Amino acid sequence: MENIRNKVERKPWLGWAIFIVSLLVVFLIGLFSSSIMERRAEAIVAFRPQVKYADNEPRNEIWGENFPRQFQSYQQTSDTSFKSKYNGNAMIDMLEVDPRLVILWAGYAFSKDYKQSRGHFYAVEDVNNTLRTGAPKTSADGPMPATCWTCKSPDVPRLMEKEGAAGFYTGTWASKGAEIVNHIGCADCHDAKTMNLRISRPALVEAYQNMGKDIKQATHQEMRSLVCAQCHVEYYFDKKKVEGANYLTFPWHNGFTVEAMEQYYDAIHFSDWTHALSKAPMLKAQHPDYELHSMGVHADRGVSCADCHMPYTNEGGQKFTSHKMSSPLSAVSSSCQVCHREETDKLIANVYERQTKVIEIRDELEKQLVMCHLEAKAAWDAGATEESMKDILQGIRKAQWRWDYAAASHGAAFHAPLETSRVIANGLVFAQETRISLARLLIKLGVNEPLTYPDIDTKAKAQTLIRLDMEKLHAEKAAFLENVVPQWKKEAAAREATYPLTRNL
Amino acid sequence: MENIRNKVERKPWLGWAIFIVSLLVVFLIGLFSSSIMERRAEAIVAFRPQVKYADNEPRNEIWGENFPRQFQSYQQTSDTSFKSKYNGNAMIDMLEVDPRLVILWAGYAFSKDYKQSRGHFYAVEDVNNTLRTGAPKTSADGPMPATCWTCKSPDVPRLMEKEGAAGFYTGTWASKGAEIVNHIGCADCHDAKTMNLRISRPALVEAYQNMGKDIKQATHQEMRSLVCAQCHVEYYFDKKKVEGANYLTFPWHNGFTVEAMEQYYDAIHFSDWTHALSKAPMLKAQHPDYELHSMGVHADRGVSCADCHMPYTNEGGQKFTSHKMSSPLSAVSSSCQVCHREETDKLIANVYERQTKVIEIRDELEKQLVMCHLEAKAAWDAGATEESMKDILQGIRKAQWRWDYAAASHGAAFHAPLETSRVIANGLVFAQETRISLARLLIKLGVNEPLTYPDIDTKAKAQTLIRLDMEKLHAEKAAFLENVVPQWKKEAAAREATYPLTRNL
Repeated sequence: MENIRNKVERKPWLGWAIFIVSLLVVFLIGLFSSSIMERRAEAIVAFRPQVKYADNEPRNEIWGENFPRQFQSYQQTSDTSFKSKYNGNAMIDMLEVDPRLVILWAGYAFSKDYKQSRGHFYAVEDVNNTLRTGAPKTSADGPMPATCWTCKSPDVPRLMEKEGAAGFYTGTWASKGAEIVNHIGCADCHDAKTMNLRISRPALVEAYQNMGKDIKQATHQEMRSLVCAQCHVEYYFDKKKVEGANYLTFPWHNGFTVEAMEQYYDAIHFSDWTHALSKAPMLKAQHPDYELHSMGVHADRGVSCADCHMPYTNEGGQKFTSHKMSSPLSAVSSSCQVCHREETDKLIANVYERQTKVIEIRDELEKQLVMCHLEAKAAWDAGATEESMKDILQGIRKAQWRWDYAAASHGAAFHAPLETSRVIANGLVFAQETRISLARLLIKLGVNEPLTYPDIDTKAKAQTLIRLDMEKLHAEKAAFLENVVPQWKKEAAAREATYPLTRNL
Repeated sequence: MENIRNKVERKPWLGWAIFIVSLLVVFLIGLFSSSIMERRAEAIVAFRPQVKYADNEPRNEIWGENFPRQFQSYQQTSDTSFKSKYNGNAMIDMLEVDPRLVILWAGYAFSKDYKQSRGHFYAVEDVNNTLRTGAPKTSADGPMPATCWTCKSPDVPRLMEKEGAAGFYTGTWASKGAEIVNHIGCADCHDAKTMNLRISRPALVEAYQNMGKDIKQATHQEMRSLVCAQCHVEYYFDKKKVEGANYLTFPWHNGFTVEAMEQYYDAIHFSDWTHALSKAPMLKAQHPDYELHSMGVHADRGVSCADCHMPYTNEGGQKFTSHKMSSPLSAVSSSCQVCHREETDKLIANVYERQTKVIEIRDELEKQLVMCHLEAKAAWDAGATEESMKDILQGIRKAQWRWDYAAASHGAAFHAPLETSRVIANGLVFAQETRISLARLLIKLGVNEPLTYPDIDTKAKAQTLIRLDMEKLHAEKAAFLENVVPQWKKEAAAREATYPLTRNL
């Protein structure tokens, strides 16, 4: 400093030069700051609400006016081009691909129709279309209960607010057809006021309570999986909890494993249906996605559902969460490659390799289960007693529950490949013990020759074997879609016109 | 510059100041360089040869004089404290832990004695000690062939140079006892002149040829696994290749998978032994470590055996490859954590979780195999014909081959957990079909009640069941260790004193 002061004293112009340079630097800093603030301001403008709506607003397109990026990406769940590319079909007919399933589910609605899901955008349309929901003519008609709507629409929290959870779970599926018209969307996972993630379905909150946990303690990162876990889980309908209601319940009381859930179901003597061929008291696994994911390495490393299925993306300088839920394989660069430095092709090959290995042994278990049901039927036909069939039917229940838990969970072979194959291998052990008992019993009953594997290489053959009248089911469904659904939509449109809404804030 | 020149012209002392400062800076740079060169020089000094030895020198301690760090770390393969810590025992008696193995290997030497390996340091000692090598009194006595020495010692390449591979593979194990005294070591993997990694065993070179590949094209990183693959593989003794020789051969002709190797063995009608109970033509899996590792994610990512089992380490400023081959779990920080940023405890838990899941289903398969052998014996005892047993014996062979391939491979449950469980699950399917056939056959033969699982909860009970006279085996082994082994050592010492050696170079 002493030096500079001396110089300045000797040369007065030097002082001015330093002063002017300082001015220039400060001016430039100002310019940069302004530029940064401008970009920030753009961002804030982008989020200025355009419309005000009720807390339980079920229409996604209304929310979308305030959050166009999230909404537009969400609407792309209608895009099935990736599924078509990999599967040759946006909506594989699983029963056609694998007719063994028809036998495994004989006596249960899934034996009629089971297609690969298309995406959230089609949630309501596809549940109306499937043969599983039948063809009710009036709101009193079955076959399905109202509870089947629970995961299909943001109209559900709206209705639950009005009727209470138990009220919602009461009555037929058809009785709420006119109420539920908006496909899964914004209000299912977001609070309308704060846009925070929220749990809109009581079943998950209650499942936490049943495990002695409080879901309100969940971190934001946990919520990025838990909003999915409202639906992507194993569940059943508890008919004993509230008179008349099919109360949606997750069997998480003892844990997430296939054994823990079985222990729970066994203890309450629950079965989803009695098998049409074997008469075994069956369990149908829904889709224990969250449960199996939680047993895999990605969950162990703190990766949430959204991290891979709704990766961060960028548009016009704005970073936001893509709401196009989809296979991470359709967006490897923004999902897998955030952590994994391998090439896209290799990462996809790694996923398919895991799936191929798990599917190989899952198929073996399926074949054993087909034989279990047919051999049990042969035993009944030959005069087997309830007593002699008791352990056999339990064995079939156990083996198929393990198969279904592994097979029904979306992405199980990737989420937790080793746990999935552990479950399948244990299913093989139960199927094995059961078929040995069946072999002994059949001979005792005079059936000396082993049964041959049935000719079920098409869905049609398998459905004929279990005596389904598919023509009738299709005709009834067509009539339902022509007569009933349009009426539901008309009623819904009239009601939605009355929802409170303020535009041009 | 103009400015400085002006200043210097006005103030001559400024020029001198710049000159002196420059001198000072250059002097300091010189000092630093000298310090760096000194450290480098130290490193070079550390690798200056102290002793010159023959190309086929088998004594590790001689090589160790030139490479003290590598040698000293290698000698630490004698340290069993990590194994003791995790297992409670440095050398688990596997037959005691799991007496089912005695039944599975009835009629084969492994049913007498099978302990967890201790480390390369004990290779020669432990092969002398095990009951499997029996108690030869003369060099003509069995039961084992010379080929059993192949993986035990750097005396093997020395002898092969003299006798040729086929010569080495000829004769009894006892006939080469005096030749093979140095445990696995330097010359097994290194070229004495260049210290490059080398393949010293012809079986691996020939296996590559059988696959239409040239092992000389292998990269250095591949060699960091291939030197291990000289021994840590599946192999068998080909008795047809050279008259009188048990020619060590890897069954890699069709690939590494359990099915590919089985296809090869089936095609040449090979079996390791005929099972003492079931009479099935059995395959014994050795340790397909390299093969299963190659099907796992670590191999897929280019990780070599040495990367984890011989991680880089640092001593006195010197980076070198630790030659203490050991479980990476004993050195997580220098192995796993080079890539994985998780805590040590979590990484270890991850490994154990994989092992636990695989062991669970492996144990189920073992139980099924025990029953297969006992039920097959019961069928023979009840008068079964060769014809009626044919498919059953093939089923037992297939099921146990899958079990053994998965069980015998060191670290399989970690190296390739999913492939391992795929193999086990397929083993379960074969065991299942076989036991169903056995159930039908037994009833046909008048054995109406199912066999109960045998009481084999200790090694002693299981060995009694298969009628092994353990007392006799132990007594004979003790005599062998007292009379024969010291003689071998004496002969070896006399011979080694004649090996060419130059000290104080």
